[in-house]
Amino acid sequence: MALQLAVSSVILALRPAPDDGPLTLWLPLVRRIREPYEGSWALPGGPLGEACGLEQAARDALSSTTGLDPAYLEQLYAFGGLDRSLAGGAGGAGGDDGADQADRVVSIVYWALVQAEEDQAAVRAHNVEWFPASALPDLAFDHTQVIDYALARLRAKIGYSPIAHAFLPAEFTLAELRAVHEAVLGRELDPANFRRQALATGAVEPTGHRLQGTRHRPPSLYRYRAESVATSPTPPPRSAS
Amino acid sequence: MALQLAVSSVILALRPAPDDGPLTLWLPLVRRIREPYEGSWALPGGPLGEACGLEQAARDALSSTTGLDPAYLEQLYAFGGLDRSLAGGAGGAGGDDGADQADRVVSIVYWALVQAEEDQAAVRAHNVEWFPASALPDLAFDHTQVIDYALARLRAKIGYSPIAHAFLPAEFTLAELRAVHEAVLGRELDPANFRRQALATGAVEPTGHRLQGTRHRPPSLYRYRAESVATSPTPPPRSAS
Repeated sequence: MALQLAVSSVILALRPAPDDGPLTLWLPLVRRIREPYEGSWALPGGPLGEACGLEQAARDALSSTTGLDPAYLEQLYAFGGLDRSLAGGAGGAGGDDGADQADRVVSIVYWALVQAEEDQAAVRAHNVEWFPASALPDLAFDHTQVIDYALARLRAKIGYSPIAHAFLPAEFTLAELRAVHEAVLGRELDPANFRRQALATGAVEPTGHRLQGTRHRPPSLYRYRAESVATSPTPPPRSAS
Repeated sequence: MALQLAVSSVILALRPAPDDGPLTLWLPLVRRIREPYEGSWALPGGPLGEACGLEQAARDALSSTTGLDPAYLEQLYAFGGLDRSLAGGAGGAGGDDGADQADRVVSIVYWALVQAEEDQAAVRAHNVEWFPASALPDLAFDHTQVIDYALARLRAKIGYSPIAHAFLPAEFTLAELRAVHEAVLGRELDPANFRRQALATGAVEPTGHRLQGTRHRPPSLYRYRAESVATSPTPPPRSAS
């Protein structure tokens, strides 16, 4: 059978842009060590092992690439167009494939959000490097399109779900929450409008505490209500994931 | 390679419940003609052909099962747990599989919404029958869980997207829109609250027409704004679907 099945992961973290810029999205890529696209960057992943579940394969790639556990992990999409082959201009998995070059590749892609400090995001594994999502190198296969789709999903989802939770500490100010939304959306948001809309959803609630510090009027701290976070994402059937 | 790849589809239509009951969700199932689960009902689908794209495979199953084009078609999920095999109690595709019974099966499942009149929904193909989603027979493999997940996705999505559009004519009354939401959610909604919320989203707008009929005060007709429908679902990359 000439169909190969691979699992790849788009792993996203929020960190300051280079030169202490504003918060922005970063993701780790793996440099390919064999043809095709030898020397190019690609998403972490590889062929699905017979004894490995889909989500476990994504977790394994995340762990070996970053040493991190995901704050959020969800299946993104199964890409399986007829033009996806390891030999052609599309398809395939990142670091290590091992499939015949003429095979058509169906890739099941996960996306993960992680909380990565700058030092944690340093090179954890050989051939791994983090890039700002807005300044990616040329990528192998169709991985640029796959990343664009993951970013579109994140930008859509932050509008109707409490997914920003994955990027925040347990308690946060509304300014910090807004900074996460601005970094994901790539544009500034009006503070007063954002505050009103964020509180209207009912997803966050004041903790009763204020930010510790030296300011005259320290801002209030908020947290996500447990029930709003627990219901996202809709879990797939346990036995079938 | 002991991994088999299949594509299955959960196809949903809205029609009156049996005995002229309220609108409810129906879906077509295929009676299996071979072991395992010979004689049981299963989702339409089968093994992915080497020359067939994923979405095309879903469209082919939809067409051969119902003779209909989908008003909405989206990838639901790739199910690939280790316990999914054609021999075991889970996994696999519906009508015709053709895989060795010891193989592990990864199923990429699509969900489709169709507008099926009662006569169109009559048996279109041999071994196909429509069932109310609330009164399904025992299903082969893990297909009951797969259907539950599709229903959960639809119920979540109708809360934040214009997906009800797929079940409605071009112009509709707010009572018809509410009936779609009630049928999907499986519960009655307060008419005044529903009207206020539906108009607040900005997804629908009055057409300026009223329902033709003999009533003293015929209700106003609405339509979805083109831009609200055009953006759902988020399209995957064209070359990779």
